[in-house]
Amino acid sequence: MSQVYKSSINSTFVHCIRNMETNFLRAHIDQIVCLTDEEFQYAESFFTKRKYKKHQYIIQAGDVASCEHFVLKGIVKSSYTDHEGKEYILQLAMEEWWFSDPNAFNTGMPATLNVDCIEDTETLSISFENKEKLCASSRKMEYFFRKKYTTGNMALQKRVLALLSNNAGERYKQWRNQYPSLQKRISKTLIASYLGVTRETLSRLSL
Amino acid sequence: MSQVYKSSINSTFVHCIRNMETNFLRAHIDQIVCLTDEEFQYAESFFTKRKYKKHQYIIQAGDVASCEHFVLKGIVKSSYTDHEGKEYILQLAMEEWWFSDPNAFNTGMPATLNVDCIEDTETLSISFENKEKLCASSRKMEYFFRKKYTTGNMALQKRVLALLSNNAGERYKQWRNQYPSLQKRISKTLIASYLGVTRETLSRLSL
Repeated sequence: MSQVYKSSINSTFVHCIRNMETNFLRAHIDQIVCLTDEEFQYAESFFTKRKYKKHQYIIQAGDVASCEHFVLKGIVKSSYTDHEGKEYILQLAMEEWWFSDPNAFNTGMPATLNVDCIEDTETLSISFENKEKLCASSRKMEYFFRKKYTTGNMALQKRVLALLSNNAGERYKQWRNQYPSLQKRISKTLIASYLGVTRETLSRLSL
Repeated sequence: MSQVYKSSINSTFVHCIRNMETNFLRAHIDQIVCLTDEEFQYAESFFTKRKYKKHQYIIQAGDVASCEHFVLKGIVKSSYTDHEGKEYILQLAMEEWWFSDPNAFNTGMPATLNVDCIEDTETLSISFENKEKLCASSRKMEYFFRKKYTTGNMALQKRVLALLSNNAGERYKQWRNQYPSLQKRISKTLIASYLGVTRETLSRLSL
């Protein structure tokens, strides 16, 4: 096979893969606001594709964390580790979810959270500066991000209420019903930590 | 004093009061985005001033809750009551805070939260339709609300982490440091409920 032909195949393949990925982002944005082809191409030019291996850290406490990430593939765990080394899971994010260290991303302060990969992960990532530029130059994308944050607020309020009001069994049931596909892909130990219960409690609840 | 003169005084007084209130909203918006006089007058025309008495309900579970509220004066308590009648406090909002039943406001579903007044309260309230109209016609206000929701997200993530990771003593200390003025205005019983601890535990922590 000539080098030229191989390059052509590779280039077509890469183009298709890229289209699949960006179509995934586009379908996600289209749920809130419809972009023309030109508007979407413009928006996606602000994102960078990144690949990470299982166990790799995307954000580490103490570092600069200037990107917000959209998950194309994989699962990540966003967590806080206290001074005694105990880990508390804030978020388990899979395909079509957004994650960041919100405080670090929006204020420029060092990260307080760790984000590492539960599976090999691919993201489309946008820096704070690029997000602001994109919102300033695309009315539709500013609307999109306002609505995404609104949904995020609703989910977080629900989580606060669940932590305050539900017992471990109810929290587990609610979480299982809400994210059935996520449950199959992560360990019971992580689920227990996310729910704020011990591994033993979760085992009893799973029976 | 002639009726005309009295009316003139009243009208001037009402005008000043109205200016004070709207200036309060304007100062709040100005922390994020600067509006011209015309832009602010346009934005404030979407809000309605409301007054509530201590103990009065602003939102009741089961009802339509189609407004988001900005607190001009007073304190409100946003809470969820479970099927056994136990109340869990989601938010204690004072001057310059926003509150709503986010799910009811954004989806049109019946409210699941109750919001009642801890003190006589005054709000500037905006309906969902008006908020969307305002954002669609004022670029700056769309930016303002995107940034407000971003800050809201950061605060909620912090609360989730506190509920997961801190013990009662740490939660109380963190809350006291964060909102010293709020602490002086509400009862220990309410603080305990907000923190998710018993009244007895809080009394021990306050010693």
